[in-house]
Amino acid sequence: MDRRSLLKKGVLAGAAVAASSALGTSSAQAVVTGKQIKWRMVTSWPPAFPILQTGVERFAKRVGELTGGRLSIQVYAGGELVPPLGVFDAVSSGSVQCGHSAAYYWAGKCNAAQWFTCVPFGMDAQGMNAWFYFGNGLKLWEEVYAPFNLIPRPAGNTGVQMGGWFNKKIESMDDFKGLKMRIPGLGGKVIAKAGGAVVLLPGGEIYTSLERGVIDATEWIGPCHDIRMGFYKVAKYYYYPGWHEPGSALELIMNKKAYEALPSDIRAALDTAASELNVQMLSEFETENAKALSQLKSFHKIRLLRFPDKVLEGLKVLAAETIEETASKDPQANKVNEDFMTFKKQLAAWNKISEKSYYDSML
Amino acid sequence: MDRRSLLKKGVLAGAAVAASSALGTSSAQAVVTGKQIKWRMVTSWPPAFPILQTGVERFAKRVGELTGGRLSIQVYAGGELVPPLGVFDAVSSGSVQCGHSAAYYWAGKCNAAQWFTCVPFGMDAQGMNAWFYFGNGLKLWEEVYAPFNLIPRPAGNTGVQMGGWFNKKIESMDDFKGLKMRIPGLGGKVIAKAGGAVVLLPGGEIYTSLERGVIDATEWIGPCHDIRMGFYKVAKYYYYPGWHEPGSALELIMNKKAYEALPSDIRAALDTAASELNVQMLSEFETENAKALSQLKSFHKIRLLRFPDKVLEGLKVLAAETIEETASKDPQANKVNEDFMTFKKQLAAWNKISEKSYYDSML
Repeated sequence: MDRRSLLKKGVLAGAAVAASSALGTSSAQAVVTGKQIKWRMVTSWPPAFPILQTGVERFAKRVGELTGGRLSIQVYAGGELVPPLGVFDAVSSGSVQCGHSAAYYWAGKCNAAQWFTCVPFGMDAQGMNAWFYFGNGLKLWEEVYAPFNLIPRPAGNTGVQMGGWFNKKIESMDDFKGLKMRIPGLGGKVIAKAGGAVVLLPGGEIYTSLERGVIDATEWIGPCHDIRMGFYKVAKYYYYPGWHEPGSALELIMNKKAYEALPSDIRAALDTAASELNVQMLSEFETENAKALSQLKSFHKIRLLRFPDKVLEGLKVLAAETIEETASKDPQANKVNEDFMTFKKQLAAWNKISEKSYYDSML
Repeated sequence: MDRRSLLKKGVLAGAAVAASSALGTSSAQAVVTGKQIKWRMVTSWPPAFPILQTGVERFAKRVGELTGGRLSIQVYAGGELVPPLGVFDAVSSGSVQCGHSAAYYWAGKCNAAQWFTCVPFGMDAQGMNAWFYFGNGLKLWEEVYAPFNLIPRPAGNTGVQMGGWFNKKIESMDDFKGLKMRIPGLGGKVIAKAGGAVVLLPGGEIYTSLERGVIDATEWIGPCHDIRMGFYKVAKYYYYPGWHEPGSALELIMNKKAYEALPSDIRAALDTAASELNVQMLSEFETENAKALSQLKSFHKIRLLRFPDKVLEGLKVLAAETIEETASKDPQANKVNEDFMTFKKQLAAWNKISEKSYYDSML
């Protein structure tokens, strides 16, 4: 283990202690009342946040049904018990037993985590699921999370996201130069490479920043969530596709000690309910995005534009560089990246004659 | 209820009695030993058939884990207990408690059933799931199966299939004239409309028929299953895409009385395990098709051809006519078709800027 990883683990351990003392508990021990086990679950989503938080609540209910109430999961939205981005530490330390979030939020603690959500120009939801369940995806994810006492499960996917809301037209790669855009993660690194001024802003500040010209552009999720943010009122163009997030997988993370303390049928309930959430959350995203897009077009008369081919080609080159640089930072990320890319390449040859043909000629 | 439906129900009732007497039982009552309930499950797939039968066996195992062994499901492949196409009647009559098959096999008993598997130029797997879980798909399916005492659940999808193996090139719609092709269902009706001589053959006879020139072409499933049939040895061209089956959904069907007799946690186990099978079976199809395609290209040097655009356009017109004619046969099919097409249209507008863009520029 190299120095950087050790330092990171030190930082993480510190954070975990802070989180657990704030919560007034210091072990993964679940509360057991009579025959009922009570788990607490924290998420990175706002209360009642459509599809994400509501999906997690459906998951908790399902686990209750499956176990005849023997495992009861109390769900806390982001900020209710721990901050939205405190999910990883809270579950890792055992302050709470499980959480729902996205692996790429933990890139600072664990570089390899990003591949388990998505990378720019990576795989779509269907590809990610194939990699997780029948490639090495989930196996590698478990390996990467093991030092953090975490057991991951794929538990939802946003589907292909949108490219974002812009007040400047993007006609060539030059148009990114000086562009002030709110775009986090690897996508942000790609835009920075293209000459953009990448800005990080919490969700609640994006609208006003766009309105006041503090930023020229922002990405968010897709039509269903974007319409609620009202961006169509303060941005001229809605660009597609979301090259930076072609199919972001969401995660259920469980504290290893808490999970292993459960009887095998309850462990199976958590695993199976996660698979159900996985397919159903994507299905809800697709359904609601389709409805919202129709509203945006019919009532709000948005100007929908596709990034020109040469721009997508340019971004793809920069994305490959960014991913390569990120993967080369540690052997684990490199190993995950290699497996991801090998799987993607073989699947792509098949999808060119299957799904691509469907979308080209049957839709 | 019209005369045709009544006649059909009479036929069905007769078949159900025959099936149940052959099996030496006449009710949906499951065998209960001590605290263990034993179910029998029949499928339409050959023993050990990859992905389909093996997936169903994984499902049965999962239900066992989820219920701590309280529900034990014994799986019988097609022909082991009832014929492959006897699944519907066996579960409907209660001779067995559940089955795994594809709804379009029951078109003769229940015209509307076809839309719950796929229709030519219909939706892909992701679209079907969106329709089932967050559109009216599953609700309508339950309604359509209720008179047969069946409860359906989506439980797998083949993904986009291949167009088939051909010994004659298809360069225009004229090339279908006189073409002897093995293609069942609505796809077969479309080929017949195009002037083809549609032949129905069981799986075991296709290879020799193709070899001897009894048929000029056949569709099967996709690379993973097609490679095992050895068609690459006796056919010149492998055409894509599988316009006739762009995402065939598989079904879990349960006898209503047997299902309703279960405690609610065991019912939840069956439902959740079906959702898991749904996402995982598609993932396995994608993974294995990608591998097999690579083999077919590298080792067997197949000639992979895309149906020309004008052929796909021609088939699409005939498919729309065929679907319209089929739907107009009864009000229920018409209702299902209208809902399917409305959902498909709204989803297509979204998928044109999301998944299609992914496949165009990111793959």
